[in-house]
Amino acid sequence: MTAELIDLPSLSRLFAPRSVAVIGASSDPMRIGGRPVSFLKSAAFDGPIYPVNPKAPEIQGLHAFANVRDIADPVDLAILAVPGPAVRGAVEDCAAKGVGGIVMFSAGFAEVGEEGRAEQEYLKGIVQDAGIRMMGPNCMGVINFPARMAATFHPAFDVDVRPGGKIGLVSQSGAFGGLCTWMARKRGILMSHVMTTGNEADVEVADCLGFLANDPDTEVILLYIEGCRDGPKMLEALEMARRNEKPIVAIKLGRTDAGAEAAASHTSALAGADTVYDALFKQFGVYRASSIEEFFDIGCAVAIGKLPKSDRVGLITVSGGVGVLMADDATMRGLDVAEMPKAVQAKVKEWVPFAGVRNPLDITGQVLNDPTLLQRAIGLMLDEGGYDSIVAFQGSVGANPEREAVNMKFWQDIVKDAQDAAITISGMSSPEYKQVIEGAGIPVFEEPTHATRALGAMAGFRRAFAQDFNRPKVGASATALTKGTLTEVEALDVLSQADLPTVPYRLTKSADAAVAAAAEFDGPVVAKVVSRAITHKTDIGGVRLGLSDDDAVRDAYDGIMAAATKAAPDADIEGIMIAPMIDNDGAVETILGVHRDPIFGPVVMFGLGGIFVEALKDVVFRVAPFDRDEANRMIREIRAFPVLEGLRGAPPADLEALATALAALSSFAAAHGDAIETIDMNPFLVRPAGQGAIALDAVLVTKS
Amino acid sequence: MTAELIDLPSLSRLFAPRSVAVIGASSDPMRIGGRPVSFLKSAAFDGPIYPVNPKAPEIQGLHAFANVRDIADPVDLAILAVPGPAVRGAVEDCAAKGVGGIVMFSAGFAEVGEEGRAEQEYLKGIVQDAGIRMMGPNCMGVINFPARMAATFHPAFDVDVRPGGKIGLVSQSGAFGGLCTWMARKRGILMSHVMTTGNEADVEVADCLGFLANDPDTEVILLYIEGCRDGPKMLEALEMARRNEKPIVAIKLGRTDAGAEAAASHTSALAGADTVYDALFKQFGVYRASSIEEFFDIGCAVAIGKLPKSDRVGLITVSGGVGVLMADDATMRGLDVAEMPKAVQAKVKEWVPFAGVRNPLDITGQVLNDPTLLQRAIGLMLDEGGYDSIVAFQGSVGANPEREAVNMKFWQDIVKDAQDAAITISGMSSPEYKQVIEGAGIPVFEEPTHATRALGAMAGFRRAFAQDFNRPKVGASATALTKGTLTEVEALDVLSQADLPTVPYRLTKSADAAVAAAAEFDGPVVAKVVSRAITHKTDIGGVRLGLSDDDAVRDAYDGIMAAATKAAPDADIEGIMIAPMIDNDGAVETILGVHRDPIFGPVVMFGLGGIFVEALKDVVFRVAPFDRDEANRMIREIRAFPVLEGLRGAPPADLEALATALAALSSFAAAHGDAIETIDMNPFLVRPAGQGAIALDAVLVTKS
Repeated sequence: MTAELIDLPSLSRLFAPRSVAVIGASSDPMRIGGRPVSFLKSAAFDGPIYPVNPKAPEIQGLHAFANVRDIADPVDLAILAVPGPAVRGAVEDCAAKGVGGIVMFSAGFAEVGEEGRAEQEYLKGIVQDAGIRMMGPNCMGVINFPARMAATFHPAFDVDVRPGGKIGLVSQSGAFGGLCTWMARKRGILMSHVMTTGNEADVEVADCLGFLANDPDTEVILLYIEGCRDGPKMLEALEMARRNEKPIVAIKLGRTDAGAEAAASHTSALAGADTVYDALFKQFGVYRASSIEEFFDIGCAVAIGKLPKSDRVGLITVSGGVGVLMADDATMRGLDVAEMPKAVQAKVKEWVPFAGVRNPLDITGQVLNDPTLLQRAIGLMLDEGGYDSIVAFQGSVGANPEREAVNMKFWQDIVKDAQDAAITISGMSSPEYKQVIEGAGIPVFEEPTHATRALGAMAGFRRAFAQDFNRPKVGASATALTKGTLTEVEALDVLSQADLPTVPYRLTKSADAAVAAAAEFDGPVVAKVVSRAITHKTDIGGVRLGLSDDDAVRDAYDGIMAAATKAAPDADIEGIMIAPMIDNDGAVETILGVHRDPIFGPVVMFGLGGIFVEALKDVVFRVAPFDRDEANRMIREIRAFPVLEGLRGAPPADLEALATALAALSSFAAAHGDAIETIDMNPFLVRPAGQGAIALDAVLVTKS
Repeated sequence: MTAELIDLPSLSRLFAPRSVAVIGASSDPMRIGGRPVSFLKSAAFDGPIYPVNPKAPEIQGLHAFANVRDIADPVDLAILAVPGPAVRGAVEDCAAKGVGGIVMFSAGFAEVGEEGRAEQEYLKGIVQDAGIRMMGPNCMGVINFPARMAATFHPAFDVDVRPGGKIGLVSQSGAFGGLCTWMARKRGILMSHVMTTGNEADVEVADCLGFLANDPDTEVILLYIEGCRDGPKMLEALEMARRNEKPIVAIKLGRTDAGAEAAASHTSALAGADTVYDALFKQFGVYRASSIEEFFDIGCAVAIGKLPKSDRVGLITVSGGVGVLMADDATMRGLDVAEMPKAVQAKVKEWVPFAGVRNPLDITGQVLNDPTLLQRAIGLMLDEGGYDSIVAFQGSVGANPEREAVNMKFWQDIVKDAQDAAITISGMSSPEYKQVIEGAGIPVFEEPTHATRALGAMAGFRRAFAQDFNRPKVGASATALTKGTLTEVEALDVLSQADLPTVPYRLTKSADAAVAAAAEFDGPVVAKVVSRAITHKTDIGGVRLGLSDDDAVRDAYDGIMAAATKAAPDADIEGIMIAPMIDNDGAVETILGVHRDPIFGPVVMFGLGGIFVEALKDVVFRVAPFDRDEANRMIREIRAFPVLEGLRGAPPADLEALATALAALSSFAAAHGDAIETIDMNPFLVRPAGQGAIALDAVLVTKS
């Protein structure tokens, strides 16, 4: 797929400029216009730096220009550090000069009200006409570490700007970006990029993601997101990242009502519902962190270590208790704590008679007497245990000065011997020990569950990257749908044409025709009024069930017609539909639905019927379209999934038919895009395996 | 209540000895028998230290004795650091001498097999006969910090032993205890006690808990538990801790199958089911941590800060994004993120026009320009916002050397001004800053969600302590139950006598009697065979439903009798029970059950009927007995609780009748203690509010 919404060449001039102008440059390196000049100089940016200030011929030792237009050579990036009233002129100058990108610190735009919003729109018009990519306004800037380029003014970003980092950070909050950058420095972790997006007049979080997904220096992306403006662009960015196997760790706020209210008051972004982001993250293998520490831990682990080839993990510990803790946590994070082969267990028993040997392998305090034990045991697990990954708890080994050098060497040896294995470790360690082991490619944690959590996340990324691409190409549908609420027969027709299994019916316009139609079906039938004006058919007596002979059908036809005419005298009644009463013995009642998210378009919902949806909110979502494999994963996410597998000797439900229907529904919804408001197939009966599924009712509402 | 199972005076001689003998003392301070002498000396233990070693007249500068019997003065504690074969003699010497307690490091007992287990039982007999309290064998020892007493040999416990700590740690794993002690040292946190229990031949984890619950120095207890031996003693310890308002933070391993397997292979303790521990922790307000970091974070926060008076929390932040993160997390942890009064919001708006003012209060980066803003805003929230607690994110304030002194002072002022308020803060901070602020009574975290998590835990402790005591006194029942599986009428009778609402019935022994019985009830009846030998009544045709006239009842009587006689020719048939068919319209089907936990005795289960129990495992447990308040909390814990509140306009269920029944069932079960194997009331119909509840069926199995 070619990128269509994310334009990488133009973003390159913004994020990886070869020359930088600072408009509003100051001689005082502590001022907002002075800091970027000072940062660029101290980072040793290797392109030209052009201070722009009409009042000073020289700024911080550099030749200054009165106006950006006066610079003879090309300017890739212009940093705007001028007060509000001067912004418009500066942007016009940039357009005239033909700069590639603008990073705008200036505040007082959409975040402060209507007038600011209008001015921001005006500026957006100028830059878009001129082909300039703009970050901000009201942002804290960007840093490109390998390019030694720091376009920022905030003291929190006063960090060591040099190549070697692998973590790219995109943040919709400047303060959050600052905190993360400080935490990285404190942990001794280098980053590749820091991008704070501010008001997103032009460049949005999705553009940044797309750029980093294609950046060779960036191996993992940390994303702080409150909401996004352009859903399709976000989808494109997430697809790029998955295709290029760049793990994304995200913090998305507003999980709870209190949080969502706080987010709404904080950001001017249009936020899709939290459940939609959750669905999206699952679809694209994005890891959703719930704290800054977790966010950082996972990001650093990916940057330092490697993704495991399978979920099969060997746990090794010097304390039985910590072994149990790791086994619990690893299991909850989806890792497979598979038992060691018996023959390997026996070998370990020879070394340490009282060792726990199933998995976790507990080599006990014996490691204090035999320093080679840990290395030998890990070697055995990797060579003969069939594990692709190891999580080790090393106790006090890493904080023991006498042992430190020996242990550093053995971890380095392990990495050399087992190049494919993914390893994380925990326990006490000195800062030096941690640095050396991490340098060898093994993330080191204090807390045992953080080592299992990190490996669990990494295994999740590997699974997501290994999946077949699960968003089918769906073209726009050529046929337009009727506007407004479709009648039930219209809804059944269009869904049936979209390969969804729907109940057969006959639309009849006389009692005789109804009787003839009923004869076409085995067993009793149901009769329902068909009229666009009557949406609550049951309430007005427009539905009759269990009609088992000609008289009953005739009575029903006449009775429904009379009731409908009485209830809605002016309604255009199209007729009465006759459909077979479907036996739901042995079938599971489910609900398939679609609703339109304002940002991401059609979102498909699945759940079991009745109280499962209402009381338990046991439903799962995916952004349309998706394939059968994704539908199969989706189905297994509801808590009530065991009901579909068959309870109390009941046969398992036809999961293939269900998955096929969900995928078909998603393609249908995607093809009609924004035209669809909601679809409900309730009940959607899933019969025992091999016997298919069928929608007994359908409601379809389009944008009118 | 007087302590009956936990004997505090004898534990005091063990845990707070005035004199210590070290049997097997060594002159080499690095050896297992040398370390305790060295630790006691370096900690400046202020009682006599008596090294015991038949081969040396002096050990590490102290006069040594050939045998503990040779010591003239009383010996409270004897540390046993002798190899396995010498243990029995040393214990006999201790018994002869009349020591108060033994801490036994020696290994090779129950943990290594049958022979060791037998020797351990023998030693247990000696010490119990002599009135000695023994810790171990196979333990890493105990430390009493205020008493400067370190009875341990492991280098991980080589810490600063001095008064001032408030955290008592009890651990069933020595290595885990060592890791925690190392972490405490690394964080600069003092402890009051460290106790590692080893094989628990005499003193168990519950004794340690009981001692700490009554120890004036200990303000919070950290508990690492894999399982426990004596359930009633554990209940007594938990009750003591709650009564004395000592928060307990627990790590209990074995949540998942993999974890439980690992635990089983690691420990020789008899473990109750994990769900029972979970129930117990909820009942007694114990906070269950799922990582060592969380365990420690909560423990330290309680030791440093204070419990909030209510759940109402004010959040304050210098970053909108972090505010949202805190609001989400605080809400998920049960805190009430209540909106600020409008008048107070207006005052903040005057200071910072773009501030978020609902709650979180986002004072923005403006705090960098106005250092007094944070203090003023917090003062306002406490004085006029109606909050009893504050969680603040201070951004880079605490890592800014220029501001440090000012900010330290303002936090100290806040604590002085608002003595009742519970405060936790997060953000960047230097070690010195953290130390000063924590010294003032405010726990400081880097991670914002750890500050909300800690406050949430502290609010939970406050709620638990404020609850009326919820374990009623239940004496043993005077009436014995029939052995084995009771008949349905017996089960209904005993439950009805225990004030549980059960379906009325008549036991009939002829068709005429059955007809007469049916006439006593309105509407149709049900007939069921009554025989101890027939447990699956339906399977053999022993149940007939919906009998609405005399003939039907007569037919049913004869038919059931014939079927039962045919299916079980030798069975003693007591008759046929006739009961009304109960209309379940508008009622919710639930299940009330009891099962006997081998450690904790009767455990009561509650859930909705059918697939809620089977597929969703949506059930909740409590250890019997408990009162109606506890039953009410229990009912609200199931995910399907909204079903009981009334869905789709259905009336709310009679929750009071349900709670009364659960409490009554728990008292009945407790009164019969170990005699009951299982009780099942399924279905137990809960009718709309005011209309009560009724058990339609009951199964009761006693120990035979």
